[in-house]
Amino acid sequence: MFYHIKDLQYHAKPSRPDPVYAKKLQEILGGQFGEISVALQYLFQGWNSRVNAKYRDLLMDVGAEELAHVEMLATMIARLLNDAPVADQEAAAKDPAVGAILGGMNPQHAIVSGLGALPADSVGNPWTASYINASGNLLADFRMNLTYESQGRLQACRLYEMTTDPGVKDMLSFLIARDTMHQNMWLAAIAELESQENVVVPSTFPRELEKQEVAYDFYNLSEGDASSKGRWAHGKSMDGLGEFRYISPAPAFGDAPKLKPTPPDVFNTPPTVRNDNEE
Amino acid sequence: MFYHIKDLQYHAKPSRPDPVYAKKLQEILGGQFGEISVALQYLFQGWNSRVNAKYRDLLMDVGAEELAHVEMLATMIARLLNDAPVADQEAAAKDPAVGAILGGMNPQHAIVSGLGALPADSVGNPWTASYINASGNLLADFRMNLTYESQGRLQACRLYEMTTDPGVKDMLSFLIARDTMHQNMWLAAIAELESQENVVVPSTFPRELEKQEVAYDFYNLSEGDASSKGRWAHGKSMDGLGEFRYISPAPAFGDAPKLKPTPPDVFNTPPTVRNDNEE
Amino acid sequence: MFYHIKDLQYHAKPSRPDPVYAKKLQEILGGQFGEISVALQYLFQGWNSRVNAKYRDLLMDVGAEELAHVEMLATMIARLLNDAPVADQEAAAKDPAVGAILGGMNPQHAIVSGLGALPADSVGNPWTASYINASGNLLADFRMNLTYESQGRLQACRLYEMTTDPGVKDMLSFLIARDTMHQNMWLAAIAELESQENVVVPSTFPRELEKQEVAYDFYNLSEGDASSKGRWAHGKSMDGLGEFRYISPAPAFGDAPKLKPTPPDVFNTPPTVRNDNEE
Amino acid sequence: MFYHIKDLQYHAKPSRPDPVYAKKLQEILGGQFGEISVALQYLFQGWNSRVNAKYRDLLMDVGAEELAHVEMLATMIARLLNDAPVADQEAAAKDPAVGAILGGMNPQHAIVSGLGALPADSVGNPWTASYINASGNLLADFRMNLTYESQGRLQACRLYEMTTDPGVKDMLSFLIARDTMHQNMWLAAIAELESQENVVVPSTFPRELEKQEVAYDFYNLSEGDASSKGRWAHGKSMDGLGEFRYISPAPAFGDAPKLKPTPPDVFNTPPTVRNDNEE
Amino acid sequence: MFYHIKDLQYHAKPSRPDPVYAKKLQEILGGQFGEISVALQYLFQGWNSRVNAKYRDLLMDVGAEELAHVEMLATMIARLLNDAPVADQEAAAKDPAVGAILGGMNPQHAIVSGLGALPADSVGNPWTASYINASGNLLADFRMNLTYESQGRLQACRLYEMTTDPGVKDMLSFLIARDTMHQNMWLAAIAELESQENVVVPSTFPRELEKQEVAYDFYNLSEGDASSKGRWAHGKSMDGLGEFRYISPAPAFGDAPKLKPTPPDVFNTPPTVRNDNEE
Amino acid sequence: MFYHIKDLQYHAKPSRPDPVYAKKLQEILGGQFGEISVALQYLFQGWNSRVNAKYRDLLMDVGAEELAHVEMLATMIARLLNDAPVADQEAAAKDPAVGAILGGMNPQHAIVSGLGALPADSVGNPWTASYINASGNLLADFRMNLTYESQGRLQACRLYEMTTDPGVKDMLSFLIARDTMHQNMWLAAIAELESQENVVVPSTFPRELEKQEVAYDFYNLSEGDASSKGRWAHGKSMDGLGEFRYISPAPAFGDAPKLKPTPPDVFNTPPTVRNDNEE
Repeated sequence: MFYHIKDLQYHAKPSRPDPVYAKKLQEILGGQFGEISVALQYLFQGWNSRVNAKYRDLLMDVGAEELAHVEMLATMIARLLNDAPVADQEAAAKDPAVGAILGGMNPQHAIVSGLGALPADSVGNPWTASYINASGNLLADFRMNLTYESQGRLQACRLYEMTTDPGVKDMLSFLIARDTMHQNMWLAAIAELESQENVVVPSTFPRELEKQEVAYDFYNLSEGDASSKGRWAHGKSMDGLGEFRYISPAPAFGDAPKLKPTPPDVFNTPPTVRNDNEE
Repeated sequence: MFYHIKDLQYHAKPSRPDPVYAKKLQEILGGQFGEISVALQYLFQGWNSRVNAKYRDLLMDVGAEELAHVEMLATMIARLLNDAPVADQEAAAKDPAVGAILGGMNPQHAIVSGLGALPADSVGNPWTASYINASGNLLADFRMNLTYESQGRLQACRLYEMTTDPGVKDMLSFLIARDTMHQNMWLAAIAELESQENVVVPSTFPRELEKQEVAYDFYNLSEGDASSKGRWAHGKSMDGLGEFRYISPAPAFGDAPKLKPTPPDVFNTPPTVRNDNEE
Repeated sequence: MFYHIKDLQYHAKPSRPDPVYAKKLQEILGGQFGEISVALQYLFQGWNSRVNAKYRDLLMDVGAEELAHVEMLATMIARLLNDAPVADQEAAAKDPAVGAILGGMNPQHAIVSGLGALPADSVGNPWTASYINASGNLLADFRMNLTYESQGRLQACRLYEMTTDPGVKDMLSFLIARDTMHQNMWLAAIAELESQENVVVPSTFPRELEKQEVAYDFYNLSEGDASSKGRWAHGKSMDGLGEFRYISPAPAFGDAPKLKPTPPDVFNTPPTVRNDNEE
Repeated sequence: MFYHIKDLQYHAKPSRPDPVYAKKLQEILGGQFGEISVALQYLFQGWNSRVNAKYRDLLMDVGAEELAHVEMLATMIARLLNDAPVADQEAAAKDPAVGAILGGMNPQHAIVSGLGALPADSVGNPWTASYINASGNLLADFRMNLTYESQGRLQACRLYEMTTDPGVKDMLSFLIARDTMHQNMWLAAIAELESQENVVVPSTFPRELEKQEVAYDFYNLSEGDASSKGRWAHGKSMDGLGEFRYISPAPAFGDAPKLKPTPPDVFNTPPTVRNDNEE
Repeated sequence: MFYHIKDLQYHAKPSRPDPVYAKKLQEILGGQFGEISVALQYLFQGWNSRVNAKYRDLLMDVGAEELAHVEMLATMIARLLNDAPVADQEAAAKDPAVGAILGGMNPQHAIVSGLGALPADSVGNPWTASYINASGNLLADFRMNLTYESQGRLQACRLYEMTTDPGVKDMLSFLIARDTMHQNMWLAAIAELESQENVVVPSTFPRELEKQEVAYDFYNLSEGDASSKGRWAHGKSMDGLGEFRYISPAPAFGDAPKLKPTPPDVFNTPPTVRNDNEE
Repeated sequence: MFYHIKDLQYHAKPSRPDPVYAKKLQEILGGQFGEISVALQYLFQGWNSRVNAKYRDLLMDVGAEELAHVEMLATMIARLLNDAPVADQEAAAKDPAVGAILGGMNPQHAIVSGLGALPADSVGNPWTASYINASGNLLADFRMNLTYESQGRLQACRLYEMTTDPGVKDMLSFLIARDTMHQNMWLAAIAELESQENVVVPSTFPRELEKQEVAYDFYNLSEGDASSKGRWAHGKSMDGLGEFRYISPAPAFGDAPKLKPTPPDVFNTPPTVRNDNEE
């Protein structure tokens, strides 16, 4: 169950309305790596976790915090949209500055949400659950979480540079710091799991069932060998169980495939169609 | 530019047709973490990389390999669909085994693709580019790549357990081993970058601009304190720059938001609507 | 069957081209609550209706009218795009007014549709059938229809304020009036059904099968009790069958869930992963 | 801010695993009218509400409750998936009952979520924010909310009939009762608003700006006049401001549209293409 | 404007209910090449056509017919769902035949649409306007239309083979014949346009502006030269303006791209990250 | 397998950055008819082709070339985004030209991809596999391919007119010429197949099974008879097997449908709801 507290986790008050920036800020609310994504991803991972009470509790703590970030961003966006000159087109025609605002706004902020936040990204794509995952394997999922905090902090930093409003910058400085914590946190949780499971996910698949002779080979499949200079091309593998090898050129282990014709009632191109150059 | 070689990277020949399994195998071809995702993600990251020739070459090598995996899976699925009893419904009515196959198949394998592979997942969602990203920040992107190889190997292992066909298992044992390599590879590339950049993405955002006093605090926002027992709740932070703290209960730094009314020409509920309990 | 009449239901002629407004007007053509939504929703509800000839006829009448509205909007948008300065970029560079138009247009109006209407909303999301529903339960569906006419009229009124073109305003004044009728119409149809079925959908589910002791309780799950002042918190319930109660704090009837571990061949995080703070 | 409580709002324990039913139950978790939809819809409406503290509080109360329903359904689905025979295909081949389970399951429950709930509907479509809306006009939005509770309760009742598991039925009897309350609640809130605003949304658009002569006419646009027998075809309109009229046949107020040719640099079919039958 | 006639264009009555087949038949109602696609594609092309009254009339005629096909399929699907054993799970447990039906049905036919048709395809993807196009160039669009009639007839023929129900086969024999007509029709319309415009779309782009020296070359970019045996590899080009050439190996006209670093405030991986193998 | 060559197929270097044009150019990279669509469509058609080695080779050749076009466009877009003034908002406030650029950019080019290309169209819709198809019937698929090359060249020509940058025009002149070749090529391949199969797809469905009496009739379903003047309304049909007829008015072969009531446990509107005008 959830209980809602009226106070915001942190201030979300811009110094002045800025509907063009409101459109951009939507990215970290409803975009691929936005706050809706992390909130629902952590909650689903928590609900699906089965035997690890500590990690379940961790996921619920952070999932609840991300809901608070959704709230802060929704509030900030609504305030950035205050007094947006949505209707006064005569004024706009005369004032290029007003015209620029109208042109740069997301029109749905006026037409659809009545100057409120949208559950969408900075170009208007509605948020979709195809962004997120809860796999039941915590190491796989914590890596996904670290990814989301990394991409999310990157986007927040870019947005920080795209405004001069002290109120917006203040809120972003809070969110960026929380992303610092959350990256550190997932790194710590990953370290805990890797120390018990080694680094390859899933750790419980029997090694003898995979084709181990290709499990540490790097295949050069593009012109040049600049890729041979990386750590992945030589030395002990990161799981400590193999030795990296750089293979150039990369081999083909299989043949050119030949597929059987389909039955006639599928109505594919029939085999009787000539396949030569007599025509 | 790309050049296509007819031979498959590895064998993709099942021992017998199995249209129900073909449906399931679609997940690692056209699902969120399937081969289309990694192929296009690595290629876009390579094309967008600007100054790091070694990493660009790495991305093109692995992107090209993933295209070969798309090809292997498409070939395997087409063969699993060989001789599928799509049309002979009278036989199906008499033979429960045939009926079960018809019921468990993806109907689009018969109606849409004529017993060929679909660019879709195991329930039929078409592949979408909203699965992938190329951010320009390699550490953020390599973490995403490690995630995809982790979730992808997990799914391949699950699919390995869901069949007894030796030909399918053989191909999966190859793909699983390549995922082992690719996890090791991204871990190695991440280690290279972290050793130069520290662990928080992006590393170049000035620390003094974030609200450092909350950058290492864990907020307990759910009942119980099981989450206090993790590495993330005490000790040196993973970036070596702070000390984790467990804060319980979590504070609210902001106030309850009060939003201004919108202009009348937005036609929101007007402020004159009574907001009390006189009715 | 359908028969098409060449004349428009109402005039759709702007006084002057305005490609920026054309982009905005797409919202009520191909957006969530646009005319494609209502047209297809009413037609599917009509085709799926099984025993109620009067309501089926009603749905076909209004569905057919909404197709005429799609047509009017498509025509209006094509005319608003007349003479759009899509190609003359040199002129644009010199004339800020032309540049503003180019910047505010939907680029797909030039590149994709050749100055014609798109089946998409004001930010370019293609129309999707996930917007609509035909459930077989007319009271549920008529409430959905009333919703669409309410949100649709709201958007049309906002768009009315966003233009000064008398031709556009004339067409919108017609559409707004039709939405007035359609709201009245669905309200009337809902009143007919509610008078026979009572107000809770579906009316035919046996009351004794639902947990009646919680069927009229309001749960206070957020800070403050402003919500206790509404009609929903006290007095006779709207269906006349119960008494509203305001419950604060809201109880938890269930326990904290404990889930079984998954079988090993699912490769989730194994129960052997330590779940404590010894590390 | 949100605070999470470990106990479930109500029990979510099936009597036995049933992975086929787990697939169906996804509809009211992640489908169009599922709990994710109502939770996020109410929260966004609350965050976007500007001057009506009572309604904002109402929305946060119910939004928080719907999050608890998401949690109950996620828990129930995970338990219905306990011990699902995902991997033992040899057993399946011998036992038709096991085969039927495998055929009827959502394969992503095994491959993607590791026997956990998915943020998706009963056929696997990921949840999308295009399902929801927060318009800033409370009457429009409360009608949408009533719709979602109506369609949602209808689906829950259908699912109640599709199982014989007492534990599942017990949980559904709770959710169905809550939907009874929520329909009553939105009806009450709607009644409050309608008593102040009249029934047509938005109430603040000046009536003289709409084309009032068509604001109460029903247009017969399909064969037959069964639709003339409804309440919408005669008598006082529901808003009390007009008189319903049944117009048959429906008039066309506009002309057949003639569109201007596009400029040549759009490369549409040129006007010089002959438009007659001389060929 | 549209006028609806109650009679169906053709019979849509199955001999017996078959909910499993109803799921499959959805493909040609709401799939990529289904009747919703052609109906809306033709109508939008008609509404967007600007100077060619004959082609506009053609498009409206066929668009109206396709709406009648949507209606026939919706009716057929509703009847195939008659008496579907959606709720009687006890019976299902005892009767494998009933169980097979339940397993093979689209669960949304029971839960969402109440035994009515859905605006979705055979695996449940909702119809989306991203399937269709109206470009303003009739030759481009008529080729798209010919494609849709070709793929659509192919799918209808496959579905014809997948049932033994005489009523369903009768309806499909009508739709297949209409697709025969519509392929002939678009071929005729294409022939008219090609005879005036030549075959390359768009015909009005000045030839001297394209790089004519590569306009008739076939590039061999895959192993083997089987592709050299086709008509496209030698002889006069189809537009009569060039000569096909088979180029093997295919040349690269450009260099390996080198991209500039991004400004620091984008926070991409900085150029200072070492790009060599010293580590 | 695929092998990547570092050199671009053709130059992709603009004369100057132009982030607004970069947004537009996305259409032919990641839009419905963009290069991702043709690349993946041809590759899937190739992988699914079963007995026609010449056509398989053709598809792999052209699929590989289209991947090179994806690469060229990604490179061009990254360069058009060089030095985009994403962050310097103070400068923008002072310089209307900079402001116009910021307003016309796709914000995701700055926030999401760090000045790199996106796998999306010109309004930001992510690429989706619902754009493409591989049906197993080569004639159907080659018509789809011809369509994509026709719509794609049309869009490239429009984009050619929308820029004055010589470098961009140079690259487009190459792509336009390749589209000329590819239209010619698919026309040639179609001619080969039609000469062996006749023109109606699929050619192998027995003619006696379709309702031949309606296979060559044109139905006038809209006001006016302008459509009677086309080649499709009279004379020999294009397949040489029938005679076109113009039927006006179009007949209805079926009756008005009457559907059975659903079982009570579906909870649709019950038949007992009055269906007349007594109220």
